[in-house]
Amino acid sequence: MNILLTLQYDGTNFCGWQKQNNVRTVQKELEACLSKLFKKEITVRGSSRTDAGVHALSQLVLLTHKSNIPIEKLPIAINSNLPFKDLVVTKATLVSNEFHPQKNIYKKTYRYKIYNGETLNPLLRNYTEFVYTPLNIKKMQDACKYFIGKQDFKAFCSSGNTTKTTIREIYNISVFKEDENIIIIEVTGNGFLYNMVRIIAGTLIEIGNLKKSPESIKDIVISKNRINAGKTASAKGLILYETYYK
Amino acid sequence: MNILLTLQYDGTNFCGWQKQNNVRTVQKELEACLSKLFKKEITVRGSSRTDAGVHALSQLVLLTHKSNIPIEKLPIAINSNLPFKDLVVTKATLVSNEFHPQKNIYKKTYRYKIYNGETLNPLLRNYTEFVYTPLNIKKMQDACKYFIGKQDFKAFCSSGNTTKTTIREIYNISVFKEDENIIIIEVTGNGFLYNMVRIIAGTLIEIGNLKKSPESIKDIVISKNRINAGKTASAKGLILYETYYK
Repeated sequence: MNILLTLQYDGTNFCGWQKQNNVRTVQKELEACLSKLFKKEITVRGSSRTDAGVHALSQLVLLTHKSNIPIEKLPIAINSNLPFKDLVVTKATLVSNEFHPQKNIYKKTYRYKIYNGETLNPLLRNYTEFVYTPLNIKKMQDACKYFIGKQDFKAFCSSGNTTKTTIREIYNISVFKEDENIIIIEVTGNGFLYNMVRIIAGTLIEIGNLKKSPESIKDIVISKNRINAGKTASAKGLILYETYYK
Repeated sequence: MNILLTLQYDGTNFCGWQKQNNVRTVQKELEACLSKLFKKEITVRGSSRTDAGVHALSQLVLLTHKSNIPIEKLPIAINSNLPFKDLVVTKATLVSNEFHPQKNIYKKTYRYKIYNGETLNPLLRNYTEFVYTPLNIKKMQDACKYFIGKQDFKAFCSSGNTTKTTIREIYNISVFKEDENIIIIEVTGNGFLYNMVRIIAGTLIEIGNLKKSPESIKDIVISKNRINAGKTASAKGLILYETYYK
């Protein structure tokens, strides 16, 4: 049985998704819980490798196991065995035996959240990047169109990226206010390179701060050189917002 | 010099505002920081006693001290001496020598936030009350008008209330969706009794769950009996949103 789990987590107290020794990760906690529940060692495969501090509202995880728990009761069975509240299974769906946790994913949406007020907002400190200089949203919005399309995003990729190609397609990117002082950057694409959304966010923040022009994105992309893009914005502002599969 | 500080805090890891022995409270942390900064023992007076877990975006605090730090630089001076990020001073204003931290406050707005989804949202777990049964917002909105006005709110007051009278005036109360699954109850009044907003929220949740009718509020108020109102909703959903002074 191939079961697709949808996970939500607050990344603050996790060292990211991927299992590692001696640190708390989402995969590690989930596998420990499933292994206890099913009384055998369980390994799962995630569709997105989120870094330490990054949050998720839609991490898809493949569990291959013949479960005797009815599929619709599986989320509650898992959640009641998780001894903390920063990780929640929201859905379980049966998928085909051929389902692949990366290949079947055709689209992802990330959101990057900025708190653009005079002082840090303590309620949002773990869920936003704090920028105290007033950002010019219009300029940030003007820059968006240069990201759209199938392009080589090598300039927006941290070293340590392990994928074969640095070509990705961005379907949509927008910048909008969610509230008086909250700015959201929403990016949808077929896939993202290592730190790509955080570098896009960091570059858009520099555009909002008038350190770069909206048009500069064109040249940064063409340069294929990481040094020309903006800083990598911090992990805590990033949320894996939606994952689409076929 | 009478200085009015505006404080924001995440109440999750505080045992409320008021100083107490052996536990971490907002007043205790602020006074410790100010005492260090001004090299003498400082006592402050808050305008609202928030309970453990309750958050604030606008707690007003009176500091009486002849500060040699310019008033506009005081927030940053205090914040850089606070060794954590769940408490922030956002503003400092000079007020008259007659200013009283309760008497000069003529209006307060609280918000109560409900996460009304199928599963707990881990990103909002400390900032919302989780209700998984779908709430009927229309009924909750219909109930609002019965709270408005100068009334004896004894039925919406926990034992332990120490004020002389239980008469308060509610100027405005509304229920609205902030997002797909987030419901906000916003209440503005001249003052609030012990746990009053949380009991109002708990009662409105029961109305949204069709356990009580909107019209029942009239009788609950008249009864002046706490037992007739709904449960006290949890502290984590409550935010002291705005405090108005003259």
